[in-house]
Amino acid sequence: MTTASFDERLQRAVERTGTLACIGLDPHLSKFPPDLKKTFEGRTGADRREAAAKAVLAFNSEVLRLCEGKVPAVKPQLAFYEELGAPGWKALEETCAIARRRGLLVVADAKRGDIESTARAYAHAILSDDGPLGADAVTISPWLGIDAIEPFVGAVKEAGKGLFVLVRTTNPASALLQGHGDPTAALVVARALGQLDLPSIGAVVGAQTPRAEVAAIRSAMPRSWFLVPGYGAQGGRRDDCLAGARPDGLGILVSASRSVLYPPADGGSWSAVEAAIDAFATDVRS
Amino acid sequence: MTTASFDERLQRAVERTGTLACIGLDPHLSKFPPDLKKTFEGRTGADRREAAAKAVLAFNSEVLRLCEGKVPAVKPQLAFYEELGAPGWKALEETCAIARRRGLLVVADAKRGDIESTARAYAHAILSDDGPLGADAVTISPWLGIDAIEPFVGAVKEAGKGLFVLVRTTNPASALLQGHGDPTAALVVARALGQLDLPSIGAVVGAQTPRAEVAAIRSAMPRSWFLVPGYGAQGGRRDDCLAGARPDGLGILVSASRSVLYPPADGGSWSAVEAAIDAFATDVRS
Repeated sequence: MTTASFDERLQRAVERTGTLACIGLDPHLSKFPPDLKKTFEGRTGADRREAAAKAVLAFNSEVLRLCEGKVPAVKPQLAFYEELGAPGWKALEETCAIARRRGLLVVADAKRGDIESTARAYAHAILSDDGPLGADAVTISPWLGIDAIEPFVGAVKEAGKGLFVLVRTTNPASALLQGHGDPTAALVVARALGQLDLPSIGAVVGAQTPRAEVAAIRSAMPRSWFLVPGYGAQGGRRDDCLAGARPDGLGILVSASRSVLYPPADGGSWSAVEAAIDAFATDVRS
Repeated sequence: MTTASFDERLQRAVERTGTLACIGLDPHLSKFPPDLKKTFEGRTGADRREAAAKAVLAFNSEVLRLCEGKVPAVKPQLAFYEELGAPGWKALEETCAIARRRGLLVVADAKRGDIESTARAYAHAILSDDGPLGADAVTISPWLGIDAIEPFVGAVKEAGKGLFVLVRTTNPASALLQGHGDPTAALVVARALGQLDLPSIGAVVGAQTPRAEVAAIRSAMPRSWFLVPGYGAQGGRRDDCLAGARPDGLGILVSASRSVLYPPADGGSWSAVEAAIDAFATDVRS
């Protein structure tokens, strides 16, 4: 039996749900519904982390229930779980397991960037089906060069996992390095990734990237999926997010978190979250 | 009372121990002593992770006992703990607590690189004294620009914590981005960090960096501490590691892990590890 590649699995999930939407699972405790907040507020230290991690799992369980069948993928941001220490990691492990059971692909937003045995340990920690998370894909940083990508390639080839390499982010200071040189360092990365000529090695390309840059990155990685953060809370609109789509209209996974999980109106109600997921999924339908 | 800066605390610890040596706490399970190995070998999945994490804590406890008073700092590599999931994070939390009790500074080798609320969550996870690890310093990646550094600056200024930013690594493919452009991207980072003009913002500068590059980075960051990996197992010699020292002979923290924790001769005996720590500390004495 041949394992399907991550790209194939993602494409099928997009076709099944009819949308390019990916829900970011960024648990901001301060924005949690009041009934969950009261389970950890007032506590401190390890006691608070234990209680908050339980609230995070309860929150995510509800979000994942609302996501099932509606979007192809979810994207937990590891920082918010690590902030809660070991109980946070446990909540993350259980979140990934629930997502899998609900048929949702898991993109672990880890932005790890290391080499050799260290990178292999991260690959095992995050992607291995025998490891604690068993995520379907991971975001990684290319600052150390292709050496930082290669230890993950085994998981891509043999276990059908995917990578999204940070090519172009759109925070204000991103140009310092990503825009440095001619060609820019961002384009150098995109071309190096394109030359690997492997399926399931995608790119993170922020929604606010200038159109000419998006086109150059797409030209270097014609078949790859781009993970596009920046929708909603960060100001990105549908057209910005989809600017780098392939000729078949696919190849883009748009992620949103705060604008969907913590909708400003009717704050804290699950029906508002459900409506926000629906609106986002519809806005970026495939 | 004014909190001492990380640079001041590091300098005092170096003066007290008389060495620039930092022991990397990279638990390679396959290289563990036989009596520890047998506690997890043959197990699988979550059961193995739980048992292996206990072995890691037992291993680290012994290493930290041998390090006390002999070296200024230790450097746990987060990947090897995350590989063991929540029990691994618990072992990491306890390792950091033991190191602190033994008067050892903790440099968390995390190479995180994110922005805004995510980077603040990492800063809280790793550096905050109210967080799970309470490390003294952290390694971070500059690929997203100075935006990735700034969320950590509060911990630096207010809580006496330190940063080591990945400026120049020496893995074979590091030149793809770090050596890109003129000036090189590595030098662009060093200059941007130098312009922040804050204490306790250091740089990671690999032992095999060409001398002219080391000199240029030192010129951009004249007072900063450099964390220098690459001693021993990775081939770096004393003179390579100390090439970027400040005129006062300090400003360098040399790290070694595999060559010290898993000495090839007399494999697995704690007296061999103790001798390797002593030899390393003496070789890079201040």
